Amino acid sequence: MTTNVLGYAASSPTSALAPYRFQRRGLRSDDVAIEVLYCGVCHSDLHTARNDWGGTQYPVVPGHEIIGRVTEVGPGVTRFKAGDRVGVGCMVDSCRHCNPCERGLEQYCAEGATFTYNAVDRHDHTPTQGGYSQRVVVSDRFVLKVPDGLDLAGAAPLLCAGITTWSPLRHWGAGPGRKVAVVGLGGLGHMALKLARALGADVTLFTRSPGKEADALRLGAHQVVLSTDAVQMAAVGGRFDLIIDTVPYAHDLNPYLPTLAIDGTLVLVGYLGDLDPLVNSVPLIMGRKAVAGSLIGGIPETQEMLDFCGQHGITSDIELIRMQEINDAYERMLKSDVKYRFVIDMASLKD
Amino acid sequence: MTTNVLGYAASSPTSALAPYRFQRRGLRSDDVAIEVLYCGVCHSDLHTARNDWGGTQYPVVPGHEIIGRVTEVGPGVTRFKAGDRVGVGCMVDSCRHCNPCERGLEQYCAEGATFTYNAVDRHDHTPTQGGYSQRVVVSDRFVLKVPDGLDLAGAAPLLCAGITTWSPLRHWGAGPGRKVAVVGLGGLGHMALKLARALGADVTLFTRSPGKEADALRLGAHQVVLSTDAVQMAAVGGRFDLIIDTVPYAHDLNPYLPTLAIDGTLVLVGYLGDLDPLVNSVPLIMGRKAVAGSLIGGIPETQEMLDFCGQHGITSDIELIRMQEINDAYERMLKSDVKYRFVIDMASLKD
Ligand SMILES: [Zn+2]
Ligand SMILES: [Zn+2]
Ligand SMILES: [Zn+2]
Ligand SMILES: [Zn+2]
Repeated sequence: MTTNVLGYAASSPTSALAPYRFQRRGLRSDDVAIEVLYCGVCHSDLHTARNDWGGTQYPVVPGHEIIGRVTEVGPGVTRFKAGDRVGVGCMVDSCRHCNPCERGLEQYCAEGATFTYNAVDRHDHTPTQGGYSQRVVVSDRFVLKVPDGLDLAGAAPLLCAGITTWSPLRHWGAGPGRKVAVVGLGGLGHMALKLARALGADVTLFTRSPGKEADALRLGAHQVVLSTDAVQMAAVGGRFDLIIDTVPYAHDLNPYLPTLAIDGTLVLVGYLGDLDPLVNSVPLIMGRKAVAGSLIGGIPETQEMLDFCGQHGITSDIELIRMQEINDAYERMLKSDVKYRFVIDMASLKD
Repeated sequence: MTTNVLGYAASSPTSALAPYRFQRRGLRSDDVAIEVLYCGVCHSDLHTARNDWGGTQYPVVPGHEIIGRVTEVGPGVTRFKAGDRVGVGCMVDSCRHCNPCERGLEQYCAEGATFTYNAVDRHDHTPTQGGYSQRVVVSDRFVLKVPDGLDLAGAAPLLCAGITTWSPLRHWGAGPGRKVAVVGLGGLGHMALKLARALGADVTLFTRSPGKEADALRLGAHQVVLSTDAVQMAAVGGRFDLIIDTVPYAHDLNPYLPTLAIDGTLVLVGYLGDLDPLVNSVPLIMGRKAVAGSLIGGIPETQEMLDFCGQHGITSDIELIRMQEINDAYERMLKSDVKYRFVIDMASLKD
């Protein structure tokens, strides 16, 4: 039996987000119904609402950093019960039988993962709608357990910003004895600093803006390098095993490549598009270095990340807003005026 | 005591290579004196002779695919004796104490390896001169053993073209169950096909030129894909764990990236310069793929490669020339008119 749900949706590329009533499906055997308590605000939400990448189907309810409480489960669900604290991230389904899915890399599903909003459900072909709403209904495989003790509002951004940086940190072996740098200090960058530090790596922040040093050190960096300062850049030549590049727009990678150690990798997690200006191959060849990309993370590693954050008391630095403030929040995000993530308190929807 | 040696040198960027007499140093304790029997002709020889990359010091004697016979050894040398069949590749020295050197990655020496020609000896500061000559004198660490039974002329290109493709094949795990593609069928590409096949990988050649299929299959490819054919390219989408890109000029990488599997890597070995046109990050991020580079290979892995070639009877397909034909050979190389490597028979120098 479907449920009538209140959310916030964009109805066109130029319209502000506004209240929107829609139906959530009745529970299938493997479904978990979740009362949304908090939802983080990701740049993807804004870009999808405004059709910046094309392909948006309206109305669209954004939100894929979802924290909530289980209200009901389908008859086939054994891992969750009513009252559990849970999370949902960027994906709500995938083919489940391809090689990436079998390896727990659902984000690289050969048939394409089903994203949390602006996608189509694989079974009933209805549009998926995100976490800016009272309730979500999600197959149990894509529901995460939130460890006890973790602040629920601060945990919301772990579901996208957290896993997007955790996955490459783990895949490329960030840990004791490894030197990791992070480019950019926003939602992704501040999580990368916290997670890399807690993993035991030596952590550096690259930034173009002087004045971020105190915050970067507080968040976990051992040092800050001003990327516009040639002397500081030369001083870290050949240093980093891994660079997590969180910058969300086209930018010059060439200054960073010489700071990679032999066999080092620069991983793009924030920018989809042409690598402009041209990347020069000389530093790659002269040190067996690589430029790679990484997309969010798989479901098992998302659970691993949440458990790690529970053990280490890691959450996002957030600014809690009411649902009604979302349009102002988008404007501030466009100016990078947030430290470091907006999170919507869904209790405000009842106001 | 120095030795008077006859070689072929370029005396300016525009002059043809011509006979040149110079001195080889007397033997140091760790030195091996080698009578050069064969020397492969690499594109780097031509580019250095013509100062295409800048920095050439004249006169320069090119040649870094050297096969010869030991004539004499210094008192500290135990691994070689007069009469041994040996090889010398692109490097003749390095700092020997940095982290890459200690790991046998002398090509990435933190202080810079000493290259076989157009470099400066670390001890006596004389210019290094290459294998287009009767004799070379090289420190034992940089001398390779050539396995019995391997054709000496055909083995010469293993010292540069062979190791340049072997090193990334090994580093990125080419072997049974792995799918490897090679871009470009020249000196490097034809060695990549042979080595990848012998390592047990599934091997594909990407080529822009129809008509290379029979040769590619003979050299080791299981299939040939015409990279200008959209249907053929789509059919290999997501297929390759590793692509060895041997193309020696700027070229578009974007058609190849979608043919990489999840976690696949495209390794540049042939082109130093800007990756023009712009590389798009979407396929990198959407499949955790990478663009990397690799430079020749270390000394231990060069020996490993030679031993492997000895076991599998692998040599380069060559066209044997006389030293006096080198200038014509350069012109033909510029037209890619060689299958697949010129090798100079040094006996011709006595003519
Ligand atoms: Zn997101
Ligand atoms: Zn799948
Ligand atoms: Zn060469
Ligand atoms: Zn060294």
